[in-house]
Amino acid sequence: MITTATPAAPSAGRLRPLGLREVTLRPGFWQQRQDTNRTASIAHIEQWLEKAGWLGNFDAAAQGRLPGDRRGREFSDTEIYKLLEAMSWEYGRTGDAELEERYQAIVRRVAAAQEADGYLNTNFGRPGQQPRYSDLEWGHELYSFGHLIQAAVARARVSGPDLLVQIAVRAADHVCDMFGPDGITSVCGHPEIEPALAELYRVTGERRYLDQARLFVERRGHQVLADIEFGRSYYQDDVPIRDADVLRGHAVRATYLAAGAVDVAVETGDTELLDAVTRQWHRTVARRTHLTGGMGSRHQDEALGEDFMLPPDRAYAETCAAIGSVMLSWRLLLAHGDPAYADLIERTLFNVIATSPADDGRGFFYTNTLHQRVPGTEPAPDVLVPRAASSLRAPWFAVSCCPTNLARTYASLAAYLATVDDDGLQIHQYAAASISFRDTAVEIDTNYPDEGRIAVRILESPDTPWTLSLRVPQWAAGATLDGRPVVPGWAHLTRRFETGDVVVLELPLQPRITAPDPRIDAIRGCVAVERGPVVLCAESVDLPAGVDLNALRVLPHAEERDGAVTVTGHTVQPPAHGWPYGIGPDHRTAGTLDIPLRPYHRWARRGPSTMRVWLPLADGRTE
Amino acid sequence: MITTATPAAPSAGRLRPLGLREVTLRPGFWQQRQDTNRTASIAHIEQWLEKAGWLGNFDAAAQGRLPGDRRGREFSDTEIYKLLEAMSWEYGRTGDAELEERYQAIVRRVAAAQEADGYLNTNFGRPGQQPRYSDLEWGHELYSFGHLIQAAVARARVSGPDLLVQIAVRAADHVCDMFGPDGITSVCGHPEIEPALAELYRVTGERRYLDQARLFVERRGHQVLADIEFGRSYYQDDVPIRDADVLRGHAVRATYLAAGAVDVAVETGDTELLDAVTRQWHRTVARRTHLTGGMGSRHQDEALGEDFMLPPDRAYAETCAAIGSVMLSWRLLLAHGDPAYADLIERTLFNVIATSPADDGRGFFYTNTLHQRVPGTEPAPDVLVPRAASSLRAPWFAVSCCPTNLARTYASLAAYLATVDDDGLQIHQYAAASISFRDTAVEIDTNYPDEGRIAVRILESPDTPWTLSLRVPQWAAGATLDGRPVVPGWAHLTRRFETGDVVVLELPLQPRITAPDPRIDAIRGCVAVERGPVVLCAESVDLPAGVDLNALRVLPHAEERDGAVTVTGHTVQPPAHGWPYGIGPDHRTAGTLDIPLRPYHRWARRGPSTMRVWLPLADGRTE
Repeated sequence: MITTATPAAPSAGRLRPLGLREVTLRPGFWQQRQDTNRTASIAHIEQWLEKAGWLGNFDAAAQGRLPGDRRGREFSDTEIYKLLEAMSWEYGRTGDAELEERYQAIVRRVAAAQEADGYLNTNFGRPGQQPRYSDLEWGHELYSFGHLIQAAVARARVSGPDLLVQIAVRAADHVCDMFGPDGITSVCGHPEIEPALAELYRVTGERRYLDQARLFVERRGHQVLADIEFGRSYYQDDVPIRDADVLRGHAVRATYLAAGAVDVAVETGDTELLDAVTRQWHRTVARRTHLTGGMGSRHQDEALGEDFMLPPDRAYAETCAAIGSVMLSWRLLLAHGDPAYADLIERTLFNVIATSPADDGRGFFYTNTLHQRVPGTEPAPDVLVPRAASSLRAPWFAVSCCPTNLARTYASLAAYLATVDDDGLQIHQYAAASISFRDTAVEIDTNYPDEGRIAVRILESPDTPWTLSLRVPQWAAGATLDGRPVVPGWAHLTRRFETGDVVVLELPLQPRITAPDPRIDAIRGCVAVERGPVVLCAESVDLPAGVDLNALRVLPHAEERDGAVTVTGHTVQPPAHGWPYGIGPDHRTAGTLDIPLRPYHRWARRGPSTMRVWLPLADGRTE
Repeated sequence: MITTATPAAPSAGRLRPLGLREVTLRPGFWQQRQDTNRTASIAHIEQWLEKAGWLGNFDAAAQGRLPGDRRGREFSDTEIYKLLEAMSWEYGRTGDAELEERYQAIVRRVAAAQEADGYLNTNFGRPGQQPRYSDLEWGHELYSFGHLIQAAVARARVSGPDLLVQIAVRAADHVCDMFGPDGITSVCGHPEIEPALAELYRVTGERRYLDQARLFVERRGHQVLADIEFGRSYYQDDVPIRDADVLRGHAVRATYLAAGAVDVAVETGDTELLDAVTRQWHRTVARRTHLTGGMGSRHQDEALGEDFMLPPDRAYAETCAAIGSVMLSWRLLLAHGDPAYADLIERTLFNVIATSPADDGRGFFYTNTLHQRVPGTEPAPDVLVPRAASSLRAPWFAVSCCPTNLARTYASLAAYLATVDDDGLQIHQYAAASISFRDTAVEIDTNYPDEGRIAVRILESPDTPWTLSLRVPQWAAGATLDGRPVVPGWAHLTRRFETGDVVVLELPLQPRITAPDPRIDAIRGCVAVERGPVVLCAESVDLPAGVDLNALRVLPHAEERDGAVTVTGHTVQPPAHGWPYGIGPDHRTAGTLDIPLRPYHRWARRGPSTMRVWLPLADGRTE
């Protein structure tokens, strides 16, 4: 039962995924980060899970020491499962025996906590704990099963069934017994079981799991959960998914549910459901997504805001929501083949997924603001940091979903680079990599995103013609393929390829001035600067002492100078006046400033600082 | 022991308050609202307190039915106390015997729940409840005592000691016993006990209460409370009040604490402490206050944001924070005599306090947004509405602090109109009213804020010269006093007055275009329109069908036309483009629109609507 080692393996759709055996990263932007994940983050996470006692909860469960010895929040079990998923992908990539031993040791501890009927959760059901399924709104029990199953799916795809897969199958059977058509007719406050069961169906062929996933997708939206202060939209129980126009509520919940709905739609041939999610994706991207690809505009409920409510300084843009967005876009890309989905994935990878981890792999952003007004403070080394509080990356959080989510994403990153169909190979994301499929092998050489040259070298090819398709990003006006102009979208090359052939895509990387939709109130009168897929920002550590980022005004022109994209501007001095309304024109302070801009994903790596992505224009005009 | 019937009665300071016996409203803007409060809101609140079971908690306490029969949140007792305060002021104003009976009945129920040692709280200390003072961070026990004491202070000032005053004195003695120098060296997560104890000292002369208030003020800021996700700044325990530069954290907590600190500073002659709060007020007004006077920019923690973080669409601007702001500004006005404090009070009264209640007095805004993007839905009649959820006024909230806070404020409103000093009378707020003090009586005739003419008629005056001081608001450039130009600040008139003399202040009410400080990112490129003390807004119900408030662009010019302030503008049509960044110039749609603007305090009184205070300029310029 070894299948394609990939995070989503639909049985139908326009494109077919390749897996970690077919696509491997070579030295470059992403391999460096994947290495750090492998060599530092995974061990860092494992240490924290031990230190915080969240792994120990499983031992306490097996030894009857619960609830007394329980540590962590109600969903802490899932961090162990996401670690197991990361370890599974890593083992699939590397066959690392030492990692495999650590994985096996954790799986045995998890197995010991599973109950006779398949139920597995260290927070519920024992004397002194809340009863099972007594708090579907906030208990995260099915969410927890979902991550358990996802870890097992990864393991099954990488190396076949093992103890973890057995645990997950027993858990899935239990869930189907309890929540089937004749069972509890409700859903979990946090979606995740939906894609998990659909994926487990793909791995096992057990139709019951798909039916249950569909049941969960269909039930939600009919007010099956209690109303709460944030409203039922918080967990997407306000409107049936077929009737919704846009993603809403808690951003991680919204994207996970939509991903699961695509899985169900694709496996059941339900085009109405697929169309509904597709429509929601388009409206969400057009109206509820930050420039970085980040989603989430409200701290209070970690939620997508209303249309065009996209405040840079309160951008929540949770790392996990970015991962959910990639999960969703990837599924839609496989279903439809539209490069717009890969465009958003690229933007999200370079500007959120690459932003969150510290260079040493031992710190993380939970949220990813686009405007830091006040320098943060260095978190104390052994403290559980509140999730959104720091402007500096923190080693661990009281709610620590993001580090483990990043770990499983980085470990499986190569799977998002390319797909195949009957005509040939599609390359979606550009990174130095090797790709092989059937009787074909290619190598991608590039220093992307620093440089725009992407060379695809044919290492092995059949004698017959096939099509090499390269995504030309929407931003890449002026791109060329082997010297000929190509327009954004797909660049197809259909021919017989010879070993040694090199196809060169050139993406223009001159800095771009980006103006926002005029309905986005929070960034009216501002522009951002982008270079290729990378959003840039101004950071206080690059400015002369005493220059206030909030008093900066720039001209809408950027150029590369001394290795940095630079804009020119000046500062303004508002007239002295206590009340900040009804004042006269500003004085422009003397002198012109050169402001070097850095990749947003590099910010806050040089100590506490203030930062802006959106820069106010000197003349106030953007429209 | 009947003293001036006023909400704050310092024994020192530049100005001395008058009370409800000296100042009474006559028919006009504020009397209408005070009448609605008296005839509708107070009974509405009393009914809800019964229906929700919060009043019944006191009976349950007396009858040993707690915790089983406990209803409401941990601080629900305080709503009963704020109702008693409102009833006290009303009784003082009107002597209404029927109201007095209802008041006495409630006081008896409260008295029955007080324990032998003076402790009184229906949520703590009984078997099955959390122990007393085991959760100072969130328990609100001292906050609750604070409102009990404030109600008693009102009663004592209005009609002398009664059973409520006895209850409060016993409670205050208990607090001093428990939290004195040798007691629990901590504070309450929610300030309120501080001004309450200082005021009780003023009423009783018992120095111990003042000492305890000072102890609470001084202890806070030394990390005596636990750290929390929002940070200790949430309850002002991050920095000692003497060292802080600005109000921060939860806006109601911040303003209540500052008010209490002014009380302590004034009574102890502590100019350093007074200077610290004064400095904080100025910086908060200059950087953390919305145009309406509303305070609070973050929903998550109901908090003041960082400097210049003032998003109209997420303005929290809690009604209670506005009341806290008035409490603070009033105390600073009495201490310093600077009309800037009365300016902010005026702004807050007309644009927050007048905005919150429904016309019928049976619905309330908890938060007061400056930009409604999506029309709200009518709240169901018998539902406890989440505090910030609705764009329509709701009859009651799960956290229902605002209705009772408004009730006590409206009932005591006349006390904020005028003060005296050794030289004469100062009029701070303009409303039709009668004022008498010593051997002097005046009547104010005005249709303010609809009209700018304020006539002060002398009804009675001593033979000797005295000074009539009239506040000229900061916005009132071009004002005249008896035809002679006067500049914003104080207009003083020192002479012998005769019965029948009329002094006329003319405040110019032509609409003003107001540009914001350029450091306020969220309203860059926008202007607001004000008329006198009233902030105006555009509301969708006044626009032709199909016109989107978010696509509106206006010219920076407003005029009165057909009885409404009107601006001219047009709509823009952003180019069709899925991704909302990097797009070209908008198309201006054909035709010019006249947009009637209405007082912000009148918004959402004609059904669900969208609304904007800040209007984007047609040419994008504001600086």
